[in-house]
Amino acid sequence: MARQCIGIDLGGTLIKFGLLDEEGNPGKPFDLPTPQGGGDAVVQQMIDGARKLMEKHKLARSDVAAVGVGSPGPLKMSEGIILATPNIPGMVNIPISAMISAALGIPMVLENDANAAGFGEYVALQKTGIRHMVFLTLGTGVGGGIVVDGKVVRGAHDIGAELGHMIVQPCGEPCNCGQCGCLERYASATFMSLRAQRMVQDGAPSSLQETLKHKGKINSKDINEARKAGDALAKKVWDEAAMYLGIACVNIARMLDPDRIVLGGGLANAGDDILLPVREHFHRMNWKITPPETAVVLAKLGNDAGFIGAAGVAWQAYREGSIQCLLLP
Amino acid sequence: MARQCIGIDLGGTLIKFGLLDEEGNPGKPFDLPTPQGGGDAVVQQMIDGARKLMEKHKLARSDVAAVGVGSPGPLKMSEGIILATPNIPGMVNIPISAMISAALGIPMVLENDANAAGFGEYVALQKTGIRHMVFLTLGTGVGGGIVVDGKVVRGAHDIGAELGHMIVQPCGEPCNCGQCGCLERYASATFMSLRAQRMVQDGAPSSLQETLKHKGKINSKDINEARKAGDALAKKVWDEAAMYLGIACVNIARMLDPDRIVLGGGLANAGDDILLPVREHFHRMNWKITPPETAVVLAKLGNDAGFIGAAGVAWQAYREGSIQCLLLP
Repeated sequence: MARQCIGIDLGGTLIKFGLLDEEGNPGKPFDLPTPQGGGDAVVQQMIDGARKLMEKHKLARSDVAAVGVGSPGPLKMSEGIILATPNIPGMVNIPISAMISAALGIPMVLENDANAAGFGEYVALQKTGIRHMVFLTLGTGVGGGIVVDGKVVRGAHDIGAELGHMIVQPCGEPCNCGQCGCLERYASATFMSLRAQRMVQDGAPSSLQETLKHKGKINSKDINEARKAGDALAKKVWDEAAMYLGIACVNIARMLDPDRIVLGGGLANAGDDILLPVREHFHRMNWKITPPETAVVLAKLGNDAGFIGAAGVAWQAYREGSIQCLLLP
Repeated sequence: MARQCIGIDLGGTLIKFGLLDEEGNPGKPFDLPTPQGGGDAVVQQMIDGARKLMEKHKLARSDVAAVGVGSPGPLKMSEGIILATPNIPGMVNIPISAMISAALGIPMVLENDANAAGFGEYVALQKTGIRHMVFLTLGTGVGGGIVVDGKVVRGAHDIGAELGHMIVQPCGEPCNCGQCGCLERYASATFMSLRAQRMVQDGAPSSLQETLKHKGKINSKDINEARKAGDALAKKVWDEAAMYLGIACVNIARMLDPDRIVLGGGLANAGDDILLPVREHFHRMNWKITPPETAVVLAKLGNDAGFIGAAGVAWQAYREGSIQCLLLP
């Protein structure tokens, strides 16, 4: 078997493990549950999962170039430390790179989970020769990953690519982050649902009145279905999200001029129902000085993007010799 | 004399020539007028200026590592071609890198003028160890330059860092570029003046009524002076520009997380009068999740940024061996 990197995608419920070979071909991943009993248990599960993956594929330590971990943050990526993970109890100041590389005898790279997913989609685009890509993940929140000239952009303080917190509406909806008018407040599945729910509760006429009465809440799928059935309120909320995503795409194109803007996350499961309106707003609002060079497309990898990108970042660090933790036992 | 790169800053009125040594120390530059008689005359003036600079400093061909040219665009940077320069007649499809490197026997790198000025400010920050910087130039328009991890971000189609055309106001003021609500329409010296002039012509009470009657127009200095003397309209226009620049700074911080956002161009000559309000809006609107890591500061180099940055980009390309035109005669 060719040399591999191990990718680990740490989530609040599941940890995903999988391989990526030198040519960018991923293996079939598996999941283990995320222990809820504190940081040590989580790290041990990650070590056990990596060992299980190596056994399954009969990989010796020397067959694995590096391990990449995509984790929610905040992180100190360059030092390999997870500072905190709001959705996983007990993960505070965990020197994960040192712990995992010591246990496995393989160097480890830590990456922000959204950056990792973005880099996964970038790995999937490699056969096209693309070097510049921006990933927008539309789920509970709106996250992002930026690849410039083939490399993840982390920023000076490891807090770059927070694309959900670009201000797209001056003095707009207040966000938990302390800003107003963040993209996330208009274009995440959660807040799109909340906005619809608020309007419905305020008595706006809509078929979603029935949905709310029936289910006690409204989700983005309900909005899309109501919209397709001709509901005006649903259409307004959906279209507003697409418009603000269009503004975000214009601003990304003006700043970074990528080949692709890739839409992922739960909301992107709506496929063309979300892609086409975003594209339409993007092209309508985009400048006319050059043809629209940046293409807006859907993500391809779904839930596999995280482990593939984590392993891809590990490959890159390995090749550059910039891998963070080489303290082998 | 230590080895040098030559920096050439091509402007509509003047061409500036100067040296930059390996440690990032610039020499004293000089200007030659920009010929208005077509592309060949402009290129010849650039060649003559470079030769004059070498003679003045007694530099042999082998003492010069490379030449960098900062030019208005659009450009094909990777191919070293100036496609057009709206403010210099006759510059259409000029293979400038090939022409200059053949004439001088020294390889040449072509860079966008705003990117070059941004990289100049980055060179000036090098003793601080900074690797991530965004430059905003506030003049006739609003331009930009982005440095990520020590390298200029050009984008996939050489049209990145067009920071003046970020949309900061959905459905805002229409821009010549075809977009609406561009930063440039609120925060450039030109458009700030136009906005004030429009309000004054519409009869808004302001001390600028007198200025307009007297001078036939209002410029950004007039607005700043009226503002400091307590004029409400002037205060509103100035503060609005600062507010939109604050939004731009938030969005830059969220996307790229730079160490510094550097304000340059004519409007930045107002010094603290523009810096402090921009900072205030930035800090007020910025998220509260982390302390404000990105510092907003004034540019240091004034009109020298362009030649220093062009030479800096040449040094970088020389060191990387990625210089575009090695077709020596």
